[in-house]
Amino acid sequence: MRQYPKPLNKLINELSRLPGIGGKTAQRLAFHILSMSDGDAFRLSDSIREAKEQMRYCSVCGNLTDVDPCAICSDTDRDPSVICVVESPRDVIAMEKIREFKGYYHVLHGTISPMDGIGPDDINLKSLVLRLQDERVQELIIATNPTIEGEATAMYIARLIKPSGIKVSRIAHGIPVGGDLEYADEVTLLKAVEGRRQL
Amino acid sequence: MRQYPKPLNKLINELSRLPGIGGKTAQRLAFHILSMSDGDAFRLSDSIREAKEQMRYCSVCGNLTDVDPCAICSDTDRDPSVICVVESPRDVIAMEKIREFKGYYHVLHGTISPMDGIGPDDINLKSLVLRLQDERVQELIIATNPTIEGEATAMYIARLIKPSGIKVSRIAHGIPVGGDLEYADEVTLLKAVEGRRQL
Repeated sequence: MRQYPKPLNKLINELSRLPGIGGKTAQRLAFHILSMSDGDAFRLSDSIREAKEQMRYCSVCGNLTDVDPCAICSDTDRDPSVICVVESPRDVIAMEKIREFKGYYHVLHGTISPMDGIGPDDINLKSLVLRLQDERVQELIIATNPTIEGEATAMYIARLIKPSGIKVSRIAHGIPVGGDLEYADEVTLLKAVEGRRQL
Repeated sequence: MRQYPKPLNKLINELSRLPGIGGKTAQRLAFHILSMSDGDAFRLSDSIREAKEQMRYCSVCGNLTDVDPCAICSDTDRDPSVICVVESPRDVIAMEKIREFKGYYHVLHGTISPMDGIGPDDINLKSLVLRLQDERVQELIIATNPTIEGEATAMYIARLIKPSGIKVSRIAHGIPVGGDLEYADEVTLLKAVEGRRQL
């Protein structure tokens, strides 16, 4: 028996395909799963299948949801005048955590990246333009990541939307709170100086 | 949406119950699973269920297997005169990797540990005694871990078996190959001196 029995081998293989899980960890997880009660193991298995089957993208904003439209889009207490544009559903969670933003979201599912052959038509941008026909929308906050692709996407959207008279803003980039000037990289420092505000 | 949608939340919860996987990692894995193709995700889900359903303990040696008796126990090319006693199925894999041991195994599934209320009857020991009635067995190599419980279990088995005339041996403990005397702990060094061999 140089190899594990087939079902165990298959489990280890599948687990090791997950990000950040190498061969040794996959092996440890597989043995742990075998030592779990049937109920626990089947619940883990089912939760994967159910999440994959029930989760979809909201037809309005593109966020991950189990009901369509999503809980945010169907919340009428939010402010319809602001839409925050983010790259991924995870960014929505991050924004929601600050408990300050009360508008709606739009998830792009990526960024414009000509190097990777991803153009404006390949991200969730068309539906954003349609949403802006709602006259209540007054501002678009672009919260894509401060990467080359994120910046390019922000610039593209700004140029696309501005002619329609809707205000387009970009979240601030600078020294993080609690950070140290000494350890900030040059680009961040440059952005911090560029984005200085009068006191 | 302060919380994730229910199916996603459930998946994150189930994943975070695995050893070494905290909340953040579970979240990252869950999002990765949602981004996988249906086929890949269902294969992962099925591999958990199948492993749990198909893997069982060998009725002879107690090793993990999908066929009973296991591949090792049903391999007639092996040497029936030696049985190696280990704590867990993982130890069988470790032993098999050295490609040197050609005998059979016996998996105890634990160690005697009075502190935790685990006595000789709570580990897979009775079936070992039965196996020793096979007259071809001449030696028992005890390869439990060099912990207090592992040592106690080794001593217990040795006392139990020796009267029957079968040779009982214990694997050597000492400085690991490539290790450094300077960094060895005292107990390991003591074991290394005790276990010295004449050159």
